[in-house]
Amino acid sequence: MKAPGMNRGDAPGASQAKSLGRALSALAERCRRELDESVVPFWLRHSLDRECGGYLTGLDRQGAVYDDRKYMWLQGREVWTFSRLYNQWQRREEFLDAARLGADFIRKHGRDEQGRVYCTLTRDGRPLHYQRKPYAAVFTMMGLHEYGLAAGDARCREEAKALFWDIERWISDPALIGRLPRPASAPKVSALADEMVLMSMAMELLAVEDDPRVRQVLADAVARAKLHYDPERRVLMELAALDGTDLRGSPDGRLFNPGHSVEVGWFLLHTLEFRPDEDLRRMALEAIEGSLEAGWDREFGGLLYLMDIEGRPPLQLEHFMKLWWPHTEALYAVALAAKLTGDGKWLPWLERLGDYTWAHFPDPECGEWLGYLDRQGRPTHTCKGGNYKGCFHVPRALLMTAQLLSSGAVRAGCQPPP
Amino acid sequence: MKAPGMNRGDAPGASQAKSLGRALSALAERCRRELDESVVPFWLRHSLDRECGGYLTGLDRQGAVYDDRKYMWLQGREVWTFSRLYNQWQRREEFLDAARLGADFIRKHGRDEQGRVYCTLTRDGRPLHYQRKPYAAVFTMMGLHEYGLAAGDARCREEAKALFWDIERWISDPALIGRLPRPASAPKVSALADEMVLMSMAMELLAVEDDPRVRQVLADAVARAKLHYDPERRVLMELAALDGTDLRGSPDGRLFNPGHSVEVGWFLLHTLEFRPDEDLRRMALEAIEGSLEAGWDREFGGLLYLMDIEGRPPLQLEHFMKLWWPHTEALYAVALAAKLTGDGKWLPWLERLGDYTWAHFPDPECGEWLGYLDRQGRPTHTCKGGNYKGCFHVPRALLMTAQLLSSGAVRAGCQPPP
Repeated sequence: MKAPGMNRGDAPGASQAKSLGRALSALAERCRRELDESVVPFWLRHSLDRECGGYLTGLDRQGAVYDDRKYMWLQGREVWTFSRLYNQWQRREEFLDAARLGADFIRKHGRDEQGRVYCTLTRDGRPLHYQRKPYAAVFTMMGLHEYGLAAGDARCREEAKALFWDIERWISDPALIGRLPRPASAPKVSALADEMVLMSMAMELLAVEDDPRVRQVLADAVARAKLHYDPERRVLMELAALDGTDLRGSPDGRLFNPGHSVEVGWFLLHTLEFRPDEDLRRMALEAIEGSLEAGWDREFGGLLYLMDIEGRPPLQLEHFMKLWWPHTEALYAVALAAKLTGDGKWLPWLERLGDYTWAHFPDPECGEWLGYLDRQGRPTHTCKGGNYKGCFHVPRALLMTAQLLSSGAVRAGCQPPP
Repeated sequence: MKAPGMNRGDAPGASQAKSLGRALSALAERCRRELDESVVPFWLRHSLDRECGGYLTGLDRQGAVYDDRKYMWLQGREVWTFSRLYNQWQRREEFLDAARLGADFIRKHGRDEQGRVYCTLTRDGRPLHYQRKPYAAVFTMMGLHEYGLAAGDARCREEAKALFWDIERWISDPALIGRLPRPASAPKVSALADEMVLMSMAMELLAVEDDPRVRQVLADAVARAKLHYDPERRVLMELAALDGTDLRGSPDGRLFNPGHSVEVGWFLLHTLEFRPDEDLRRMALEAIEGSLEAGWDREFGGLLYLMDIEGRPPLQLEHFMKLWWPHTEALYAVALAAKLTGDGKWLPWLERLGDYTWAHFPDPECGEWLGYLDRQGRPTHTCKGGNYKGCFHVPRALLMTAQLLSSGAVRAGCQPPP
């Protein structure tokens, strides 16, 4: 079965452009409503831990707590979300107050004496696990930085900046956070997630304050991200060799994560605000389109979670599932691409993604979105949050999509509050 | 829908006992055939890495290599399997030769200077990752011990014994292999997998040579395994508190892995050979039956992979899948229970498990078994091996089931070769 609109090169007509405009407006309005009436109220009502501080994210469909551990990367993400809502959406005291609850918790409990960020804490903040990846630290940094802006807390922003430089070192040398140094003879690789978080953090900093060193981090991350692009398949692969080695002999080197590829696509478009690059613009737009084409499940609809790009067996058990976040990222990426180019070819994707997403993920009865479906689109989990899903991808995509269509500009970072 | 034979307390009649006997004989014959004609030939043909040593386990449906990394726990498991086949099934030189290929590889490349066992190596044996769990070491120990018996290599067995005591320390104090010490105030817990591997390793040692210290390890592991038993639901839970804390507030404390619970059930029955315990026998039989009842998918058949015992959201994405190994373990456990008790109530389980297993997992066309199905029983992966599946659960269960029905005795460990 060939999904409609899979042909490249459809010429955008005037009526198509008009339809595109209408579709974008309708999408923006729907995102605004979903954000204000379903998603934000859910987290405000169920997630704030007034007893121990921070956020409860292990919430079932109705919002009851089934897991009270504090996952640091979800703590940081929720601080970021409430701070960003306060900074850029509505200056409601309850947003700032919600952000403070998390910021205080992670500043008090989140790091060890050497400054490493824990992965998991007990509800009351006692450490349970370290992480050998930098992502708990990344979202701690992002949360503290955005909260520093919201609260006008310069010291908090300084903490975030210092952590940014720690993370930059940890990504270059993962042995610093407990990983085994790669053997000298092993290929030098770049992980797409690392480049994405470096770009993301750097843009958050640059949106507030120019700094040539941070610009350099951004430029380097973009340069490495380009190495992930497969121009033949028009997707961003999870791993790229920094030394020209062919990685396709290993499942890791063949791993394609459609949602991730699309997400990095829109991050790359955001970097254009800081450093124009016509080739990069073309590449990012192609990567968004190519990732949707390669990742879309032509049999059952929706974006597959993980694929081996050569069709060999994926190692991950859950590769065939449909997760919420690739769909939120794709919706925003397509809206951004459509807005930037005005090209009617994005309309079928906007409709196809929208139809699938709105039909499968939002939970109008209890608020927020479901996170996990099987390949056929049946929910496999009814929870609203856990150790991976929290208050982040859904509100971020809804917010950015609503902002995009109202502001007319690509909003890569935030503006400091007046 | 209520599955047939779910009623407890069916009185076993004489004709039922006769049917049971026939079913067990048919099963043993089928296991023997499957082992000799499909499973062992597949691994002998595709897995032996004559170029770099050790085994290739990342094999697709036809046996072609899609991942050439060496996962240490699968290396150890395959050494064990070929050694055990040589020691107890057929004294074929090619088994000993295959075992030697892996034993030499793990002795040469498997451990660092401090004796820690790596998790993953490159094809040619260069280290890629450590593991903060003891399981790579466990199967290294089991493989070396069984190979030492097969080859008459006393030094190899001494290495295995020394590693056993390392592992025993690592399980008591996981900080030794890089885990964060649990906060002093956190509950003291036992992981079912830890007790299972301690029992398993101890029985392998005791089957060859009595040692009061090893007996004590076995007794302690059995005592802790008992704490995992939930007498109301008649299952073994993944975590147990050692200090009486109620763990049911956390998803980890509510985690029930039906295949694991059944597997530990048969391990507990094996311990009776070394230390008679009538209560334990009753508990283990109940746990096998209760786990099948709680873990069986009444809608689509098969054993679910993971469940929250209270029906709350599981954290694991793949909880609803059907994996090969819970079915191999359950088949053997039920055969063992039926053989030990002669009770006809096991017959419906033998049939139900057999029907599902033989219909879904074996691959008569290419040999070996598929490993992963979705909830409805459709294959989600076509590979024969990867980073978790290797040459172990299928041949072990087939071998033990065939042996059980021919020998009349529970074979808990191996006998040294003459």
